[in-house]
Amino acid sequence: MAATDFEEMWRELAPVGRSSATGGYFRQPWTTSETELRHWFTEQARARGLHVQTDGFGNQVAWWHPRGIVPNVRGVISDETPLKRSGLSTKAVLTGSHLDSVLDGGAYDGPLGVVSGLAAIDVLRERGFEPGRPIGVSVFAEEEGSRFGLACLGSRLATGASRWEDARERRDRDGVPLPDALASAGLDPDAGFLDLSDVGCFVELHVEQGRDLVDRDVAVGAASMIWPHGRYRFDFTGEANHAGTTRMEDRVDPMLTYAMTALAANKQARLAGQRATFGRIDVAPNGTNAVPSRVTAWLDARCETDAALADLVSAIEQQATDRAGRDGTGLAVTPESVSGAVSFDADLTERIVAGRGWPVIPTQAGHDAGILAAAGIPSAMLFVRNPTGVSHSPAEHAETADCLAGVAALADTLERLAA
Amino acid sequence: MAATDFEEMWRELAPVGRSSATGGYFRQPWTTSETELRHWFTEQARARGLHVQTDGFGNQVAWWHPRGIVPNVRGVISDETPLKRSGLSTKAVLTGSHLDSVLDGGAYDGPLGVVSGLAAIDVLRERGFEPGRPIGVSVFAEEEGSRFGLACLGSRLATGASRWEDARERRDRDGVPLPDALASAGLDPDAGFLDLSDVGCFVELHVEQGRDLVDRDVAVGAASMIWPHGRYRFDFTGEANHAGTTRMEDRVDPMLTYAMTALAANKQARLAGQRATFGRIDVAPNGTNAVPSRVTAWLDARCETDAALADLVSAIEQQATDRAGRDGTGLAVTPESVSGAVSFDADLTERIVAGRGWPVIPTQAGHDAGILAAAGIPSAMLFVRNPTGVSHSPAEHAETADCLAGVAALADTLERLAA
Repeated sequence: MAATDFEEMWRELAPVGRSSATGGYFRQPWTTSETELRHWFTEQARARGLHVQTDGFGNQVAWWHPRGIVPNVRGVISDETPLKRSGLSTKAVLTGSHLDSVLDGGAYDGPLGVVSGLAAIDVLRERGFEPGRPIGVSVFAEEEGSRFGLACLGSRLATGASRWEDARERRDRDGVPLPDALASAGLDPDAGFLDLSDVGCFVELHVEQGRDLVDRDVAVGAASMIWPHGRYRFDFTGEANHAGTTRMEDRVDPMLTYAMTALAANKQARLAGQRATFGRIDVAPNGTNAVPSRVTAWLDARCETDAALADLVSAIEQQATDRAGRDGTGLAVTPESVSGAVSFDADLTERIVAGRGWPVIPTQAGHDAGILAAAGIPSAMLFVRNPTGVSHSPAEHAETADCLAGVAALADTLERLAA
Repeated sequence: MAATDFEEMWRELAPVGRSSATGGYFRQPWTTSETELRHWFTEQARARGLHVQTDGFGNQVAWWHPRGIVPNVRGVISDETPLKRSGLSTKAVLTGSHLDSVLDGGAYDGPLGVVSGLAAIDVLRERGFEPGRPIGVSVFAEEEGSRFGLACLGSRLATGASRWEDARERRDRDGVPLPDALASAGLDPDAGFLDLSDVGCFVELHVEQGRDLVDRDVAVGAASMIWPHGRYRFDFTGEANHAGTTRMEDRVDPMLTYAMTALAANKQARLAGQRATFGRIDVAPNGTNAVPSRVTAWLDARCETDAALADLVSAIEQQATDRAGRDGTGLAVTPESVSGAVSFDADLTERIVAGRGWPVIPTQAGHDAGILAAAGIPSAMLFVRNPTGVSHSPAEHAETADCLAGVAALADTLERLAA
């Protein structure tokens, strides 16, 4: 019974990495809680007789490969006997999502897609379905970029969108190098990363992070495209000084330049009908009685088109530069990651939604599906209704009935694609 | 030779707690570096045959008590033989300052007063001076409040301005309780705190934290008063949400309310000719792709009069409240410490500056001398010229010639007061 299986898995995940203070989740990659989730996934897959692969970054796939057909996966650590290379001609159908969270995030963003993938396999087996091609349930690591700053790093490495030679230089906020973080979780990047060359298509199920489905009064929808989006680091520099004795007119205070920039970003995004957010800031020395020497803040910007994104960021940077001139402060803007518009595969999406009545809507959120789509793997997404639209928050929610509708939709989709 | 002694002490202190990245000092109380400073002070005092007392908070006094006269100090840990209570009728003269720093602070703020106190004793001995009353060189702990948030906590406990029952509840930014921090430095607050009841007067020498003496072209000055000042915690609360998918008009973003408040504080202080700074901020969850749920920021405000301070903070709070209303955010303002105007002892200051030509100027910075003055101990301050006025910064500086002029001025002062 899928409903019971789904609810049981959900109950098991509920306490992992949850803050008793906020009720939110702290499932940063390669921490204790995220490692626990990896073990949980392995156990769930094994209990279903699925073949689990874990690569050197912690990306995982659990394969249902009937009739001895296995996908040609190279360069991965397997916790089972080595895979026989099959010279597979039938490409695999991949679903899945991620298990990591933003800092103080919600329960659904990521795990809903993984749990639904496993539950959909249960549904298909109950239906007596025998797949004509392999079905995999994937977990991509560091999807949120909450620890090493680049979202979807796991799928980027698996698709070659990011190179390990570059990624290995990254450090987390505490200065821990990425290779050390992997080693602490028992992972070895030298073992290689998932090779997705035999994946024929990818379908990611995800909680909706807006209110489109609520407004349409439907439980499930599909994605048309992902807005272009990027992260830009703004380094504002000034002169540390005493907060009491320094006359206001003698100050070079980067906090003022930052504050004006945060307001400007909001205003420009409103005017353009797009999105701009300063949600992360780091101040030095961050003392009550000292004018700061430096304020670093990260702009998250998302727009309907690549041109609109460039215009928005340019307008914000211009206002920041003007203000820095008046404040006497310095400003350097560094794009940390910029992703162009991603259109999901129209044919694949049409096959999925045909006759279902599911709306096809855009999303402003980045996803591993966007990375796979950009790498040329036909990809699509299913969304499950979010009654408040709230996400990246402990208040993120989806009704169980809607989640089960999502499982059924995913099962139907896999059945169509893997028949 | 005092110049050599001064320079030698200064060289010894130079590397302690200094960041190789910024050149600034991180001498937070009860850390390894600040504990090293306490040992250094003890050694310096012993080398001069001074009697060192260290209390349960890490406050220290090195006593020069000729002719067997010792001050009546109760409830302190001594690292030497117990003091004989003398029933002293001649009150002591105390000088000194502090050795802790703000985060990434300068070399002079604090240590200059301590080193100058020891050097002044050397000068007086070279002059063959025999004091008629005890002279003490003090070091007060946590003067900057950089770790536990309340400036001058050491002198506050010694004078009774703060009670241990309240102070013990404080935690640092990492959640370490104050009693644990003390224990980690080998200190036991149950041993009690310095008792200053037999201190007749206190003179603190300090690097100037403004440019008054530079403008007047003099190396040394005295203080008239300390501006009223306070620290106020502003807790802005909103609703965490996804930075990409949440429409601008659906957000409840406390960063916007904070940003406008930081700009308002600057503007109000300029208009009033006073001081207001937001230099410290803490954001939750502080993720690039999440609208924050909470922004906490600390206002440092200082004014010429108590009424002006109340007006300034009220004006800033009003603007913040108005903006919070428009943003839909919550705001709570908590005064963490507010110090009224402190006038230094006019008679004492007149005795110190008589015939010297030293100007008497106000300061906007809090000092242990302000705490002792408020506790009824006649107190005064000497300032040493700061060529840039920069303080609470790695760039803080004083010329050696000016420092030595300060030592000579302090020696003259102690000679007058302890004759």
